[in-house]
Amino acid sequence: MVIGADAAGMSAASQARKRRGPESLQIVAIDRGHHTSYSACGIPYFVGGVVSDVDALIARAPEVFRNELAIDVRLRHEVTEIDLGRRAVLVHDLEGGGEKWEPFDQLMVGTGAVPIRPPLPGVEAAGIFGVQILDDGEAIHRFLADASPRRAVVVGGGYIGLEMAEALVMRGLDVTLVDAGAQPMAATLDPDMGALVADGLREIGVHHRPGERVEGFGTSAGRVREVQTSAGSLAADIVVLGLGVRPNVALAEAAGIPLGPSGGIAVDRRMRTEIGGVWAGGDCVESVHRVSGRPVVVALGTHANKQGRVAGINLGGGYATFPGVVGTAISKICAVEVARTGLTEAEAAEAGFDHLAVVVASTTRAGYYPGAAPMRTKIVAERRSGRLLGAQVVGAEGAAKRIDALAVALWNQMTVEQMSGLDLAYAPPFSPVWDPVLIAVRKAAEAVEESMAACK
Amino acid sequence: MVIGADAAGMSAASQARKRRGPESLQIVAIDRGHHTSYSACGIPYFVGGVVSDVDALIARAPEVFRNELAIDVRLRHEVTEIDLGRRAVLVHDLEGGGEKWEPFDQLMVGTGAVPIRPPLPGVEAAGIFGVQILDDGEAIHRFLADASPRRAVVVGGGYIGLEMAEALVMRGLDVTLVDAGAQPMAATLDPDMGALVADGLREIGVHHRPGERVEGFGTSAGRVREVQTSAGSLAADIVVLGLGVRPNVALAEAAGIPLGPSGGIAVDRRMRTEIGGVWAGGDCVESVHRVSGRPVVVALGTHANKQGRVAGINLGGGYATFPGVVGTAISKICAVEVARTGLTEAEAAEAGFDHLAVVVASTTRAGYYPGAAPMRTKIVAERRSGRLLGAQVVGAEGAAKRIDALAVALWNQMTVEQMSGLDLAYAPPFSPVWDPVLIAVRKAAEAVEESMAACK
Repeated sequence: MVIGADAAGMSAASQARKRRGPESLQIVAIDRGHHTSYSACGIPYFVGGVVSDVDALIARAPEVFRNELAIDVRLRHEVTEIDLGRRAVLVHDLEGGGEKWEPFDQLMVGTGAVPIRPPLPGVEAAGIFGVQILDDGEAIHRFLADASPRRAVVVGGGYIGLEMAEALVMRGLDVTLVDAGAQPMAATLDPDMGALVADGLREIGVHHRPGERVEGFGTSAGRVREVQTSAGSLAADIVVLGLGVRPNVALAEAAGIPLGPSGGIAVDRRMRTEIGGVWAGGDCVESVHRVSGRPVVVALGTHANKQGRVAGINLGGGYATFPGVVGTAISKICAVEVARTGLTEAEAAEAGFDHLAVVVASTTRAGYYPGAAPMRTKIVAERRSGRLLGAQVVGAEGAAKRIDALAVALWNQMTVEQMSGLDLAYAPPFSPVWDPVLIAVRKAAEAVEESMAACK
Repeated sequence: MVIGADAAGMSAASQARKRRGPESLQIVAIDRGHHTSYSACGIPYFVGGVVSDVDALIARAPEVFRNELAIDVRLRHEVTEIDLGRRAVLVHDLEGGGEKWEPFDQLMVGTGAVPIRPPLPGVEAAGIFGVQILDDGEAIHRFLADASPRRAVVVGGGYIGLEMAEALVMRGLDVTLVDAGAQPMAATLDPDMGALVADGLREIGVHHRPGERVEGFGTSAGRVREVQTSAGSLAADIVVLGLGVRPNVALAEAAGIPLGPSGGIAVDRRMRTEIGGVWAGGDCVESVHRVSGRPVVVALGTHANKQGRVAGINLGGGYATFPGVVGTAISKICAVEVARTGLTEAEAAEAGFDHLAVVVASTTRAGYYPGAAPMRTKIVAERRSGRLLGAQVVGAEGAAKRIDALAVALWNQMTVEQMSGLDLAYAPPFSPVWDPVLIAVRKAAEAVEESMAACK
């Protein structure tokens, strides 16, 4: 029995099926939405018109699972209770009505995340949207077509907020971004790097209001008309909430499946919960952050796919482990590419690391090669050991995917000194002769050296 | 005393100066060419007109070294002999004439590489060019303007040959590539991946003649008129030799500075030769290949810069080491990006590894995101341990720089199984939810698993 038919749930179901045929394992997957295995990360591109057909976001339709993998996918059904004692789930048919207890031997919980929706006055009005499941994307898309809103307010300056702000600009709306943080991506980037993203927002015409808190919504006839903030009020025909997500654990919690300290479902490396035969993966679980050593919840499709795969392999009788995360993330706001891995300065301090940081300006290609564009690379390193703790990149096309090399170095606990010898690819169309990553780690290594010399 | 005023030599000079002022260390740098610290890798782009001004390829002009770093740069001078007993070099003034012995305490050898120029009949004719120093690039550029050649023959299907073929196509010439290898980049890529590059060559209109050997050149009035090959003869107004380079060690060898088994000057990790006070770096030295453990000569500006820096730090009284290479390389032939790291299948076999390989087709971005383009990733892994041995990438824009993540994994001796958990950056504009690198290492891990199961 699989609860949630998106990345984690369906990866688990597919892997389990690969190892155990329909004669030995019956698989039922239940989801309250209309879709299976879709790209939630693609929603802003569908809303913005970059992707014209919502079906393009669906990796595998339910028929594929049904016909090719003999997985009994039941959409528009919702599990409303898990009874661990009876080993059964209560399934509610959202369209046909009625509910029924279904038994299970093994349970996979892939309930995902829910968008944070503060209990502010008016938050339930029409025209106010969260962005989580594909149905949300379709609802926004329909609203844009039907209600022809002109003024949009996006609340929250994280990835989803920024990507939705861009999408709405592309659809011709006048967009204001209200952000409690001092800089965009305050949870993701240090302020100096976030400032570069703010520049990019201004360039595409987004009215950016940093340090401003939403306090409520003015409505008329049940529809949102204005957003009340700590600094005044803003007219709005549509509001998109991009306040982040939290793990959707209500069902698991009520059933007595233990959560971890970060609020996600606690799982081991094989994606087992603390209840025998109950597995979990995706946005609803917590993972180990390999740099801080702490449990964290990171809602990201790539982890959900990996975790689902691991759960499914184990559930099917194989052996696989999920090794944790290092906090890699990437985004693109029009021309500005942004990426990070590991810990920011704030996170490093909070995790108790004595750290230092350097930022270097460089270019994506050799300076003389056409298309060479500026990029900034920030390195956070532990002061004494010189161990890499994190990195951030902001720049033009070709900048952000460089974070992968840094993520792999971080994964292997390299020091910045060791990294300065790395054999990274060089040719003029791809990099200056000193790759920006190498320049940055070299500077960081020098800073570590100087900092230690100063201690003598 | 520095012999060779390009990447290695001038990096060494600059680093040494940083640590020891002009009052404690006098630095003389001697070079037979007209330029200091230029990008030889940029020559094809200058010839092709992508970069219009040759000065753009010069990272630092001699005046900068003279005025800001008090380094006595002497261009158009050539060292013709090193006397280790007297600790002096014989310097020949190529323009003024005359020669003079100059004493040294410390010597840095950065003599670079020389293009391979087979002793074939007619090879000294006008219109036949090698591509090594910036002066070569200028000579080709001048010849294109003055002699208006129409038909070009490029000999050799390595990086330089392909980049020069593209450059000459861009200049409107009818270009034939004569290549002894069965596929382009035969020394760099396995044949299956090289075949994709051959497709790219055909697309830009290069007449590709694989498996054909050059046997001589027909000339008239001292100018090249045709290229004689193992398969016939080709009319040619200009010939560019891209047959690779070999370390320029004649001077060092004659002086008694020991070479290593690969033919480059033997150096330790601090870039010391076996002669006290004599250092070397760049295309003329051999490096340790960290995967095969063997000494190799890799002529690449990025290594030359790093090695020169290490030599200069040590020479100036500091401490630094060059940790070796993993054989990373990258290139772009019009729309086709190519990269590799580690060992190819052929190299792995030659180095005695029992290996397996997988190739996966994927896309550079999420399939639904505009600009998603095909790319192929090849993974070579050790059969028993699953350790990564090498990787190759061929694909459209955004494909090749992904090699860096693989190069860092290789550097850290990761297994493909470990790599399949890596936290690489995912968002639709940058990657499918399973990054092509992750798909490839996962397939490789499965192949390792199956191969071991088959052994039982």
